[in-house]
Amino acid sequence: MVFSMEHISHSAAPTFDHDFQEEFATLLRWRRDVRRFKPDPLPEGSVEELLQLAALAPSVGNSQPWRFVRVENKASRRAIRDHFEACNADALNEYAGEKAKLYASLKLSGMDMAPTQIAVFCDRDTDLGLRLGLKTMPESLDYSVVMAIHTLWLAARAKGIGVGWVSILEPAEIKRQLDVPESWALVSYLCIGWPEEEHKDPELVRNGWQNRVNVNAFTTTR
Amino acid sequence: MVFSMEHISHSAAPTFDHDFQEEFATLLRWRRDVRRFKPDPLPEGSVEELLQLAALAPSVGNSQPWRFVRVENKASRRAIRDHFEACNADALNEYAGEKAKLYASLKLSGMDMAPTQIAVFCDRDTDLGLRLGLKTMPESLDYSVVMAIHTLWLAARAKGIGVGWVSILEPAEIKRQLDVPESWALVSYLCIGWPEEEHKDPELVRNGWQNRVNVNAFTTTR
Repeated sequence: MVFSMEHISHSAAPTFDHDFQEEFATLLRWRRDVRRFKPDPLPEGSVEELLQLAALAPSVGNSQPWRFVRVENKASRRAIRDHFEACNADALNEYAGEKAKLYASLKLSGMDMAPTQIAVFCDRDTDLGLRLGLKTMPESLDYSVVMAIHTLWLAARAKGIGVGWVSILEPAEIKRQLDVPESWALVSYLCIGWPEEEHKDPELVRNGWQNRVNVNAFTTTR
Repeated sequence: MVFSMEHISHSAAPTFDHDFQEEFATLLRWRRDVRRFKPDPLPEGSVEELLQLAALAPSVGNSQPWRFVRVENKASRRAIRDHFEACNADALNEYAGEKAKLYASLKLSGMDMAPTQIAVFCDRDTDLGLRLGLKTMPESLDYSVVMAIHTLWLAARAKGIGVGWVSILEPAEIKRQLDVPESWALVSYLCIGWPEEEHKDPELVRNGWQNRVNVNAFTTTR
């Protein structure tokens, strides 16, 4: 007699024990925005594996609006890095005195060294998901892409791979440089590689830019 | 002779082994957007613990713009749920024929039962982080809040707690109902509690609304 096991394996939901929960909290504590990379390339297949995990992220209406553009072309990388430098110099003008000095001393992107660089877009015109959940809050589409990036970020850190998110870029310029469809909105430019160093505290905390605030200060009840 | 251990413990970065990486992938595969909850309240302190973990999320300039409003008031809950029902009926009008029938059959929020409900906002006027990283892409502030929500979501699932994200709401109405500052933008309304059932596939896949697409189809190289 042959039994089908299908319905059994279907309902075999995993449970996660206390040790895993603690180790996951450790992962959250040691995830960093990495800006200092070793130049060594990542092992073959590791970026593909991270992208597969990223696609497990939630998305509104299951729209999967994430679009990943791996930037390999040297001229494109140079142009984007030059553009970052110009935007960053412009941003520096927003600060004066000690804050300007401090800003100028911060390293805000790892574009100079990161062996893997990925521009991540949201396809705001995607047909997938049939626009479920988008009528009142269309920005939820972009948010789905953010969760895919965050998933990739945590999965990378679990493998010892560092990720840095660069936002000091004009989206229009990156779209032009990478020649992507008009309906794609830039969400992030990611630098990925082996980190030169590991830290428990963000660079902005260590350098006195902005301390952490306990979340209790940001929580209210109605 | 006494040695300071400080610099040693400082550099004691954790590594995560293959088993943890696999279990984390399992967590990603079994995280779900939960809409069916048991009415039982969560254990004392568990929401506070989840919020502490959420605050480990990355934020642009370390701006920590997340603002959590726990909605406990019964009249507010009822008003928000009624508002969701109205928005959802309105959204149904976007579909016709079989798709309309299917949409009407989907359960898109757990507001009727979820014992914990949290409206999550972004304070777009926060002084924290001194607006670092926001000149070219100010939307990165909202994205930081999305990553805090996603962190909470994964940490909850690791404890067996389900989270559902509701976007079928008019932000202005939720802001009015909860009387939050003008500068706060609604990012999500979260339903949190013990799930009635566990699934490996999203409800929208199981019900034939939208299948998964391999991320390779969304990845290009330039």
